[in-house]
Amino acid sequence: MNDESAYRELADYLHQTAVLQTCRQLLSWDRDTHMPKGGAELRAEQIALVMGLLHRRRTAPEFEALLDRVAPLVDGADPDAPVAANVREARRDFDRATRVPVELVEERARTFSLAHEVWVGARAGDDFAAFLPWLEKNVVLARRYAEALGPADRLYDALLDDFEPGATAAHVSGFFEPLREAHLDLLDRIRGADDLATDVLYGSFPADAQASFATRVAQEMGFDFERGRLDTTVHPFCVGLGPADVRLTTRWDESCLVDGFFSVLHEAGHGLYEQGLPAADFGLPSAYACSFGVHESQSRMWENFVGRSRGFWQHFWPLAQETFPDLEDVPGDAFHRALNAVAPTLIRVDSDEVSYDLHIFLRFELEQALLSGDLPAADLPDAWNERFAASFGVRPPDDRQGCLQDVHWSSGMFGYFPTYTLGNVYAAQLFAQARQELGDLDAQFARGEFASLLRWFRERVHVHGRRYRPRRLIETVTGAPPSHEPLVRHLETKYAAIYGL
Amino acid sequence: MNDESAYRELADYLHQTAVLQTCRQLLSWDRDTHMPKGGAELRAEQIALVMGLLHRRRTAPEFEALLDRVAPLVDGADPDAPVAANVREARRDFDRATRVPVELVEERARTFSLAHEVWVGARAGDDFAAFLPWLEKNVVLARRYAEALGPADRLYDALLDDFEPGATAAHVSGFFEPLREAHLDLLDRIRGADDLATDVLYGSFPADAQASFATRVAQEMGFDFERGRLDTTVHPFCVGLGPADVRLTTRWDESCLVDGFFSVLHEAGHGLYEQGLPAADFGLPSAYACSFGVHESQSRMWENFVGRSRGFWQHFWPLAQETFPDLEDVPGDAFHRALNAVAPTLIRVDSDEVSYDLHIFLRFELEQALLSGDLPAADLPDAWNERFAASFGVRPPDDRQGCLQDVHWSSGMFGYFPTYTLGNVYAAQLFAQARQELGDLDAQFARGEFASLLRWFRERVHVHGRRYRPRRLIETVTGAPPSHEPLVRHLETKYAAIYGL
Repeated sequence: MNDESAYRELADYLHQTAVLQTCRQLLSWDRDTHMPKGGAELRAEQIALVMGLLHRRRTAPEFEALLDRVAPLVDGADPDAPVAANVREARRDFDRATRVPVELVEERARTFSLAHEVWVGARAGDDFAAFLPWLEKNVVLARRYAEALGPADRLYDALLDDFEPGATAAHVSGFFEPLREAHLDLLDRIRGADDLATDVLYGSFPADAQASFATRVAQEMGFDFERGRLDTTVHPFCVGLGPADVRLTTRWDESCLVDGFFSVLHEAGHGLYEQGLPAADFGLPSAYACSFGVHESQSRMWENFVGRSRGFWQHFWPLAQETFPDLEDVPGDAFHRALNAVAPTLIRVDSDEVSYDLHIFLRFELEQALLSGDLPAADLPDAWNERFAASFGVRPPDDRQGCLQDVHWSSGMFGYFPTYTLGNVYAAQLFAQARQELGDLDAQFARGEFASLLRWFRERVHVHGRRYRPRRLIETVTGAPPSHEPLVRHLETKYAAIYGL
Repeated sequence: MNDESAYRELADYLHQTAVLQTCRQLLSWDRDTHMPKGGAELRAEQIALVMGLLHRRRTAPEFEALLDRVAPLVDGADPDAPVAANVREARRDFDRATRVPVELVEERARTFSLAHEVWVGARAGDDFAAFLPWLEKNVVLARRYAEALGPADRLYDALLDDFEPGATAAHVSGFFEPLREAHLDLLDRIRGADDLATDVLYGSFPADAQASFATRVAQEMGFDFERGRLDTTVHPFCVGLGPADVRLTTRWDESCLVDGFFSVLHEAGHGLYEQGLPAADFGLPSAYACSFGVHESQSRMWENFVGRSRGFWQHFWPLAQETFPDLEDVPGDAFHRALNAVAPTLIRVDSDEVSYDLHIFLRFELEQALLSGDLPAADLPDAWNERFAASFGVRPPDDRQGCLQDVHWSSGMFGYFPTYTLGNVYAAQLFAQARQELGDLDAQFARGEFASLLRWFRERVHVHGRRYRPRRLIETVTGAPPSHEPLVRHLETKYAAIYGL
């Protein structure tokens, strides 16, 4: 049998693995959207079972034999060529998966499912003590998982590698340190400027009207609701069961448009990436997002670079006023400025663009300390509150608005947080490149034209899937390696205009 | 290793199979409730994959070895004893499963999923031609499946056995013939009586208000919404992912309460059975419903024997009037009588209790003819319309209200329809027994007491799962084998009172 037919067999094998993987995704989506309370125990078993089956497929001798047979296709080939990239990434996934015993995979799945349920209740009731035993279990499982992946002296990097292939804590800190300085400096200068009036953001915004407005906006951005949907959950998220079934969730605050609406833009940004992945490759690495950081670049780009722009609100203001009677007498320009007000908050997802990354730095430090054992899980609330006070000058009044606010650690996702800041970094660099090539994007947005921007991302980023690693992708598209500088420039320019700095 | 530990291993094995089975059920539930249109193709693949995995588990040599090891537990044991019954039924399932090649299982799953999608569109657009090629495929697959199960001269019985273990077409006809005669005779006499006014049933019934009313009623009946939920679909159904996650669906007609409300009662009847199955046995035959006929006895019992009774409406009338302003001036008694008006319709699920079974007899005959090849699928609309006219005196004006109305054949469920009439038969016999033991049930309903009836069914029927085959269950609970007579008596008594016959 020749190499091409072996490659075909590999593709078929991975296709079936992907079909099974989407079953697991549906189990999670349903758990977070519609499952009745009583279903939690069975759901944990279902997810563990499917994760176990998946792990067996991903580590099967049959799969390894296929990988061995296609290896010659890569020898001497251009490493960026699609087939070579798929073979390389498939082998990488196999090598990582084989280091983890199936029992650990199943235990992680089961525990994370149950811990997530406990977290939902603990967060609602501000009850860290209820969550603590599960957080402890999750930290232990994260450590065992990292130890299995190795190396032993870089446990955090092993976790990070799941979300951002090739990234390390040291590499990430290289972006974070200069950003921290630049953000604090900008915050200082903004604090010295006149406050922006934000009262125009508050009023009566019925959930139904918000849903219809946000759906219409997402549609105009290019999100296809024949291949997707929008639901309501505690914590907004996006899941793609392949590019033809992409599901967004959000939550609605009827006294303010901001949280729910920008969550939809954010998740629709993820969703546009998922819908733009090459359907014909389903199962192959080229049909998956490059990394969580690159994924986040898409969501943050649509949320902030598009959704908080002047042109965007010029276009959508008539629809907003028609949908929400409370906006009748509000000038669109005042609304747009208020949306960009910088006012650090306790909650990461409510943050302005300048202080957002400071929330990430806090979590990045704390999760490294949890993993290494330097920070016992029981001490997390105090450590959180102290560091938060040091960065923001305010101590969270409770854990609901402190260390219980985010879903990630409840689901065992240690090493995920840095990808948010990487997303901001990539978004700024990619958007600057798009503007250079496509001209005045703000003017396009003001005319309701989002298609050329989406097309640009489809062609430059989405269509490649995992063909390039994140660093290489940014380099290929923008001509330069990832850097914090475009983000700093974006924020400087934007807030100079808004605050007259 | 002794017999008990082998039995424990068998239970564990079946537990894992059941967990996988509930994954398949969730895939179907989501397909019918929330999946975006674009997801259909992947969904068919997901269901086929999980069905294939399930079939492999159900026919695995490892499973057979376990069955062999527990066989001594049954030797000489009381066949009704729980362990013996579980071993017997597990072996039966294995024997049936091993006759079907896995390729056929996967092909059936894939085809039925896609055919179902086509049917949804064909029904909405009254387009039988669009559905025909899929109906043809489904008939061929039903035949191949029946041939695999054998014997060759009783193909229909092989299908029926999936839904009603031990039943045959001949056995079913033994109930159907006298029922047909009794129903036609009663219909004749009702036609001679004064018409009941049914205009009180029509008005404005907003979907939200209907949902809140129906939810409250289902709760009072005993349905636990912490372990279940209610959604909106084209065709009402109930699915139990184990007793702790039971999902009902219905549809709402805003001009009339009847369809949506009684669909909820019907599905809640199924749901109460599912919630009453023994959770600790999850995976063992004793944790599954006895048969589809017995399942239907529960849904028809709550829908008709409880939900259309005088006492039920005496109790719920104040709530109904409070919920629906259009009922303000309607006397509860007139509403209750109107709900029981006998007026044959084109649509099975809208039927009164007397003509309902006639719809089933039609389908029972047609699906036997489709399977045998006597009726080519292309001729179904004509055959349907002719036979319908012969039974009901009216010819359906289109296929939407004719042969496209039901979901079953689109999902390959040939042999399912007879269980509806068996359900009516069992419901009447079981309800008569309950009344004999529990006293004046109508008076209990009028006081809002449904708990003693539910408890009776929990203890006599639900808790046994598949311990007894259907016929034996009815005999054990009522002291007599299943008979059409209690149903005939129920209808005679009920309609004598309502129509003054």
